Formats: sequence, structure tokens, C-alpha cells
Amino acid sequence: MHIMKIADQLEDIAMPIAGDLRAFEEHFREAVRSDAALLDKITHYIVRRKGKKVRPMLVFLSARLFGEVRESVMVAASLVELLHTATLVHDDVVDSSFYRRGFFSVNALWGNKGAVLVGDYLLSRGLLLALDNHQYELLQVLSRAVRDMSEGELLQIKKARKLDITEDVYFQIIRQKTASLMAASCAAGALAAGANADEVERMRLFGEHIGVAFQIKDDLLDFGEEDTGKPKGIDIKEKKMTLPLIHTLGQVDGGEKKAMLRTIRKYNTDTARVAGLIDRVHELGGVRYAREKMREHQQRAVELLHTMPEGEARQSLERLVAFVVNRKK
Amino acid sequence: MHIMKIADQLEDIAMPIAGDLRAFEEHFREAVRSDAALLDKITHYIVRRKGKKVRPMLVFLSARLFGEVRESVMVAASLVELLHTATLVHDDVVDSSFYRRGFFSVNALWGNKGAVLVGDYLLSRGLLLALDNHQYELLQVLSRAVRDMSEGELLQIKKARKLDITEDVYFQIIRQKTASLMAASCAAGALAAGANADEVERMRLFGEHIGVAFQIKDDLLDFGEEDTGKPKGIDIKEKKMTLPLIHTLGQVDGGEKKAMLRTIRKYNTDTARVAGLIDRVHELGGVRYAREKMREHQQRAVELLHTMPEGEARQSLERLVAFVVNRKK
Repeated sequence: MHIMKIADQLEDIAMPIAGDLRAFEEHFREAVRSDAALLDKITHYIVRRKGKKVRPMLVFLSARLFGEVRESVMVAASLVELLHTATLVHDDVVDSSFYRRGFFSVNALWGNKGAVLVGDYLLSRGLLLALDNHQYELLQVLSRAVRDMSEGELLQIKKARKLDITEDVYFQIIRQKTASLMAASCAAGALAAGANADEVERMRLFGEHIGVAFQIKDDLLDFGEEDTGKPKGIDIKEKKMTLPLIHTLGQVDGGEKKAMLRTIRKYNTDTARVAGLIDRVHELGGVRYAREKMREHQQRAVELLHTMPEGEARQSLERLVAFVVNRKK
Repeated sequence: MHIMKIADQLEDIAMPIAGDLRAFEEHFREAVRSDAALLDKITHYIVRRKGKKVRPMLVFLSARLFGEVRESVMVAASLVELLHTATLVHDDVVDSSFYRRGFFSVNALWGNKGAVLVGDYLLSRGLLLALDNHQYELLQVLSRAVRDMSEGELLQIKKARKLDITEDVYFQIIRQKTASLMAASCAAGALAAGANADEVERMRLFGEHIGVAFQIKDDLLDFGEEDTGKPKGIDIKEKKMTLPLIHTLGQVDGGEKKAMLRTIRKYNTDTARVAGLIDRVHELGGVRYAREKMREHQQRAVELLHTMPEGEARQSLERLVAFVVNRKK
């Protein structure tokens, strides 16, 4: 029943912007509409398998801190969601994924060809949407996010091959790859609602801290953190270097480090060995350390929020921060 | 010795903008530079295997029709080349190509992952370059080209599966897929040099006619048109529907059409059958028809050019049109 619970919690948080989100559905559908039949079919498919809409939520709530949700804010939300969708479609090629959120991925149904082209098409539609509405600063904020995301992902590919990820590199990757679009969503919402440059920058930072905390939480869930159930160890099976693991590798002596890396490299599907590694990460404080780091980013996010105008929107954003770090899946 | 000849001819045509092209090299290298080591390595590799730079040539010559090559024109040329490079890198994934212009493709060396991400990165760099220079109209012109290219390529994928391409669809595909970036290059150069809206639109049309003529010429070369040597038939081997073939399919009766389509579908590697099909296309006037169509677009391009200010730049553009339709490879 976890899924229901999450949906309920998010719906609750989204209460002050429920009307905005409904209007957004229509705005976004219009933004991706195409005269080309195949494109229309694919984008329609993408719209149907819509996710939790966390990024549009960030746009609308950030906007409502500073003003009304006018047309420019709607454009910002559609642009963010277009870019997010484009990168998801491209990620499917990157990861050779055949499922996403329980649906077949675009590349599974229409091939790598289709996925690359649809992604490019969505990017160009986002661009034109912003240009047609003369939202150049908005476009700049989001273009930087696209650049950061591709840089971050390329950095991860490079480092992941050798498993040689330091904590610094880990944070750079997740800041660029995961956090940058959340950061841009918050900045975009504030900007479109008329916030000043300093407020926009603080909202960008706020979004970045949420994004980093979000990713660390994902790492922790894989280790069965606190009361979130049995460790899954999926990240290790996929040779993904997460913060609890990276920290632990820095704590052990050369011999044990070598043994751990061998488990990840060669025995990553050996359930018993993986379980043993997960236990060691718990014992050596890797999970605790990552949780502390997550709390630091949560704390920084809340502090930034407290410099913003009070009200319903701020309350919802604060609850969203709590939701990100307390979720059970 | 064809390659030398082509290089010489282009160098000659580029004479009035030789200095611009040299300055461009440096500008472009700076535009793709990255702090991320892997990215810098890949983009460096891309820059080294540089092509004929037809698109920057179009930008500079179109600009010089109306004014000086100022910084904004340089930005336009770099943006065009960034988008062109990004789409080439993405096309490598789309086509699963492992070579391009005699080099290994990006996806052969760094995987589909690398290619998709590098393409996205280059797109975002192009965006930021234009935004940092406040060239919003320029960005609009080029975003439309990106949209058209992905739409055109998706249309081709859809139609190619069933080989059911009419002449109308053929022209729509090549206008969107091949001609749109050349059209945008001419429009971008004119725009950046200060041409008015009507001039920009006429230059866009001029570029579109060049692009369409360029693609038909490619089709013709595959059929060993005039004195260009033995037919290669590579397009038929790759089941690519070209204008001479499409026209011919419209001329024959149902039985022969079925037989021709069977050859393309099933016997596309059977050299004798392919040679027979090529002969029939010649006999039935498919090659002649395509040549006429090419000449029409050449003619339209030249007519548009004659409405532009006289001078060195216009002469070069007129010679470029002649080069496109008269080249032997």
C-alpha cells in the first residue's frame, strides 16, 4: 500500500496548487502535440505514463512564494516537464532500459532511433515554447541544467567503469545529474513569478539541496535504511557506486577494499556475497554517514526556505522536503 | 582525384570568406571546450574529423550579402555547426553507423550512451552560446530547424518501413530532414548581419532550394547520372526510396510495381536484380525526371539570389549552387 500512501501524501502537499496542476495537464498536452502522426502517437504514449509530476509541483510552489501563477509560470512548468521527458527518453537509450515506471520505454517500442529523435523533438519544442513567449532568462536557467545533466552523466560513465568514485566526484555527479533539474525547476518558478535575482538564486540552491537529499535517500533505501525493510542491493548488482558504499570503501584497509571491489566487479549477482557487503557497510557506519549527509542537505534546504515569504506555498515546500527524506520507497 | 577537385572548388568559392573561416575554427573550438575531461576528449575528436564546413560557409556568405562579419555572425556560424554536429552524433545512433567520413563514429568509440549525451551536451552549448549573446531570433530560426529535422527523420522511419513514399512525402522528408538546416544557415547569416525580415525569409527559401537540389543530386549520383560513372545502387541496397525510383514506381503497371518493390524488399543485395531495376529506372525516365526537378530547385535558388545585393558574396553563392548540382561525387 506504499504507492497509495505516497500519492496521498503528494496530493496533500499539492493542495494549494491543485488547480494549477489541472490546468498544466492541458497546457502540457498542447505543448507536445504534433501534426506528424507517429510523433503524436509517441508523445501521447509518454503523456499517458505520466509520473508524479514533482518538477511541475516545484515550479508552481516556487512561483506561489512570490506571486500568482500567470501564463509565464505555466510555460516554465511545461518547459521543465518537456526537458525532463526528453532526458528520460534519452536516458532509456543510455541505459538500454526496456521498462520505465512499469511501462515499456520509448526505445523498446520504437527503437533507439525513435527515442533519440523523439527526445530531440521534445527539446526543440521546449525551446520554441520559451522563445515564442520571450522567456529568455528561463531558457538560460534550463539550458544550463541540460548541459549539467549531460556532463554529469558522462562523468558518471567515465568514473563508473573503474569504480574509482571519491565522495567529491559522487557529489559532483549527483549535483549535475539529479539535482540540477530540480534546482532549475525552483529557480524557473521563482523567476517566472517575478522574484528578484537573489531570490531566484536562493530558490535554485534550495532545489539543489532537495535534489541531493533525494538521491542520497534513494541510495539509503537500497541498503534497507531504518524501517524501510530488507536491503535490496539492486545498486550493487548494477555496480552503482552509492554514498554509503563510497564512504565505507574509504574506511577499510587495502585488503578489505580490494575484496569489496571484487565483490562489486565480479560477484555482483551472488546474493550471499552482496548481503555480506551490505552488512559490512552497515557495521562500518556507511549508512549512518550517508544519513547524516542527507540530513545536512535537508537542513540547508529548510534554512533557505525560511528566508522566503511565509504562507501556504512555503508550508507545502517544507512538507515536500520532509517527504523526500522520510519516504519509504 | 575527385576529392582534391572538390576541395579546390570549395576553396575557390570560399575565397571572399577565407579569413572568416579561419577565425571560425578558433571560435568553434572555444564553443565546444569542456572542463569535463571525457567530454573534451570526445568533442576534440569531433572537431578533428571536421567536414567540408558547407553550413558555416552558407552563414558567412549570406551575412556578407548584407554587411560585415561581426561577432553575431560568428556566433551564428558556431551555433549552426554545433547543431549540425549534435545531429550528426545523434544520427550515428539512429543509423547504428560505425563510421562517418572515414572515421569511427562517436557511438562506435563511446557507445550509444556517449553519443546521445554528447549530442545533448552540444545542443545545450549551442543554446547557451546564443542566449549569452542575446541572439533570440537566431535561436528561434535554428530551433525550428531542429524540430523539422527530427520530425522529418521520424516521418522517414515511419514511411520507409512500408516503402510507401509518394513524391509529396519524399519532398516533405527532404525539406525537413536535409534542407532545413541549410535553409536555417542562410537565414541565420542574413539575420546576424542585419538583413530585414523579408530578406531573411528569402535567404531561408534560397537555402531550402539548395538543400533540396543537394539531396536530389545525391539520389542521382547513386544511379550513375550522366558522366558520373557506373551506378552504385547503394540506396536500393539500403532500401532507401529516392526520387528517380519513386517517380518510376508511379509510371509502371501494378504487376511491375509489385516486382520492383519485391526486389527492394527481398533481393536488395542481389547485384544482378538491382542492376536490372536501375536500368528500368533509366529507361522509364526516372533519372531524367529527377534531374529536371533538381534543375527547377537550382533555378529557383538562382532567381532568389538575383534579388539580393550584387557582389563577391553573391557570386560565390551562385557558384556554390552550380557546384552542388554539378559535382561528380
